[in-house]
Amino acid sequence: MNIIGRTACIAALSATALGGPAVAIASEPTAVELAQRSQELAWWIVEDLTTEIGPRQAATEAEAAARRWAVGRLKEMGFQNVREESFKMPTWVRGDEQASLIGPFHPQKLAIAALGNSASTGPKGVEGDIVYFDSFDALQAAADQAVKGKIVFIDHKMQPTQDGSGYGYYGRGRFTGPNVAAKKGAMAIVIRSIGTDDHRNPHTGVTNFEAGVKPIPAAALSNPDADQLVRQWKRAQATRAAGSNSGASAALKMKLLLTPRNLGQQTSGNVIAEVPGSDPAASPIIIACHLDSWDLGTGAIDDAAGCGIITAAAKHVMIAGQPRRTIRLLWAGAEEVGVFGGKAYFDAHGKEKHAVALESDFGADRIWRVDFKLPESAKALADRIAAAVMPFGVVRGKQPAGGGADIGALVQAGVPAIDLAQDGTRYFDLHHTSDDTLDKVDAVQLRQNVVVWTAVLAILANSSDDELP
Amino acid sequence: MNIIGRTACIAALSATALGGPAVAIASEPTAVELAQRSQELAWWIVEDLTTEIGPRQAATEAEAAARRWAVGRLKEMGFQNVREESFKMPTWVRGDEQASLIGPFHPQKLAIAALGNSASTGPKGVEGDIVYFDSFDALQAAADQAVKGKIVFIDHKMQPTQDGSGYGYYGRGRFTGPNVAAKKGAMAIVIRSIGTDDHRNPHTGVTNFEAGVKPIPAAALSNPDADQLVRQWKRAQATRAAGSNSGASAALKMKLLLTPRNLGQQTSGNVIAEVPGSDPAASPIIIACHLDSWDLGTGAIDDAAGCGIITAAAKHVMIAGQPRRTIRLLWAGAEEVGVFGGKAYFDAHGKEKHAVALESDFGADRIWRVDFKLPESAKALADRIAAAVMPFGVVRGKQPAGGGADIGALVQAGVPAIDLAQDGTRYFDLHHTSDDTLDKVDAVQLRQNVVVWTAVLAILANSSDDELP
Repeated sequence: MNIIGRTACIAALSATALGGPAVAIASEPTAVELAQRSQELAWWIVEDLTTEIGPRQAATEAEAAARRWAVGRLKEMGFQNVREESFKMPTWVRGDEQASLIGPFHPQKLAIAALGNSASTGPKGVEGDIVYFDSFDALQAAADQAVKGKIVFIDHKMQPTQDGSGYGYYGRGRFTGPNVAAKKGAMAIVIRSIGTDDHRNPHTGVTNFEAGVKPIPAAALSNPDADQLVRQWKRAQATRAAGSNSGASAALKMKLLLTPRNLGQQTSGNVIAEVPGSDPAASPIIIACHLDSWDLGTGAIDDAAGCGIITAAAKHVMIAGQPRRTIRLLWAGAEEVGVFGGKAYFDAHGKEKHAVALESDFGADRIWRVDFKLPESAKALADRIAAAVMPFGVVRGKQPAGGGADIGALVQAGVPAIDLAQDGTRYFDLHHTSDDTLDKVDAVQLRQNVVVWTAVLAILANSSDDELP
Repeated sequence: MNIIGRTACIAALSATALGGPAVAIASEPTAVELAQRSQELAWWIVEDLTTEIGPRQAATEAEAAARRWAVGRLKEMGFQNVREESFKMPTWVRGDEQASLIGPFHPQKLAIAALGNSASTGPKGVEGDIVYFDSFDALQAAADQAVKGKIVFIDHKMQPTQDGSGYGYYGRGRFTGPNVAAKKGAMAIVIRSIGTDDHRNPHTGVTNFEAGVKPIPAAALSNPDADQLVRQWKRAQATRAAGSNSGASAALKMKLLLTPRNLGQQTSGNVIAEVPGSDPAASPIIIACHLDSWDLGTGAIDDAAGCGIITAAAKHVMIAGQPRRTIRLLWAGAEEVGVFGGKAYFDAHGKEKHAVALESDFGADRIWRVDFKLPESAKALADRIAAAVMPFGVVRGKQPAGGGADIGALVQAGVPAIDLAQDGTRYFDLHHTSDDTLDKVDAVQLRQNVVVWTAVLAILANSSDDELP
């Protein structure tokens, strides 16, 4: 079967998987049966991983259990060259965490989660006055003396967008807010969660302190708790403004206890598997997801779904017949805590040729746009891909593909990339919270992902050497 | 102004409060102004109470602070005879709570909350095999030996209804499930939350053990955690069925730690306030809400909203001119943990005459139905009320009014009752969880409640002695 024929066949299988009318392909009944049997493969991977392993923070025993599970399951599914590639990384783990607003109003507990790399307050906790900033920019602009010895609070509620592009902007409060606060002498920092929901489940995530900056306790409040802090802060300000002498007593006070620990260098690892191509001289396609998750939820959305999607798509292509190029699956370790798996893969394999790189790490909701970063030679290839995904509601974007965290180093080094951009409207409702659980995965949208990935992967895996390096 | 005229006037004010066109009432500008100024009074009460006091579990210092706040605010609002009426009650408070599934799969923590009156596991916790029941009825039907020494789990997911009528049916798992499990010799019991959401915020609530039955540890899992337990249980069953010899090792195991404490008799109290009527011989209208809340959330929906609604409505009637009958507000204490406030009110005032009783304790969403339980003499009165609320989307129901928990003893003793039934479709998403916070209150629907209550209260407070006792 030629490339076009095979792609059409796979698109037909994909339509079946989407719940459309079954297409009769008399010459390939076995492939159709297999595809139908495996049409829920992505769901099964997500359910299996999140049920039997659950949360799987990088370099913990849970992540190691997930790797053992992954190697076993990938072999069962018929992938080749399945292996772990381990690496060492600095490891931080959560401890106890409690926060309360303790004055000037009746004491109230808040829902809080430490940020990765937060310092400990010690077992007795700390108490301090809140200093309010309406944004990361406002904190940056503040004089050191306004911050020194206080507990910084950054407000600034993230708003949802389909492409998730607000993460970079709002996320600064988490990524570097603690570092800025530490440099200005803050006692600690609490931020409004980088999240778009209204549940009392704070959004964790990693923060980084520059070399030479002493880490401070750093944590995120859920949105309703941040709202409550803001309401109390405004009332305390009003009281302070009204009463001339009693001003000092109207400061908003917080008690904060965080006891995370640094465990030093621990072992994480990537899991790699392949669908070997028929042409050993052709460079492989690399497709990535990450196996680790944050510790609060079971990581169904982030990123069991991504592993389910890329793996089901590769399996569909495998079922349809051996592709020309090898498809290599990278189930990366330790993405959440600093992309250690992506770096380790690049260190080990960065000098090998890769035809193109793709990653799925944005939940389980539908793909709505495809973006390319391909060599000039691949112009017709991109057109074929754009045409193949259009029937599934995927439009062609005009911005260059970015790749993704785990393939970032490859893309930086010049490997071509394609982004199959998912709808992120509700992604940041769940991202890095305890609410990232299987029930949040929409099975219909998950299937659309698999269908689109299958169509794209089939085209790529059978592309010529004139088109891709 | 006669009764009909005053009612029409108040309905006009109410329409303004709903955001409808302002009605020009040249003769009463002050009342209109006042009503407009206070059209957000219910919101303000909910915000003020939940912000400055927050969670306020019965007979704790937080509830006492809420009573002090309530007395101050009700006086400021111009109510008369504002007072606390205190009483003693047995008091249970939450301790630490942790649960994990510890086998046969990788250990995973679950989100859990102890039920009120749960026993403690002691500080070391307990470990046991899960015995699964798909409903409360299945537990009741089980042989003692199937349960003895095990941790009972009751599944049975509550489904939402507009009238909230599933609570009685599904709620049995919480109300009496622990008592049934204890009598059969269970080590402990965990239930699927009596709730309709999919967030990892368990629903607490009181359970009761019969005299002579030794309480056991009892707690609720969030719906996603219950889902996870069920998935693991099914997989463990399948393993057990498949492997003949290794069957015993495939039991689903839980570790459970709950350290609640009983504090003995502590002080709670009701807060009472009045709009004095012009006719001292006329029996009063009693309208109720409850001031206490569960400890996990700030009790915005349950039941700060109810207090906001009845109080704003009474204030509207007050502003419009003195009513014939006294309107008595009961902000009951200790409803959540056993309706101790309602009982205390009945003990103190049950022999006084009450014309009619109403309660608001079902969230902040819109009123959609009115039900009556009135004497034959009030037939025309009920017709007037049904006609007055119809423009606000409230239909007339055919079932007898039930009253509400805090006025339950009065209604039982023969006091007439009217139910202004609220839309409960999302009420059990939030009920008794940490997610019961101010952001969940829909200001527009809250206003509709105030408008409907105002219209009804105005009619009732000016009803004749021929119509109501």
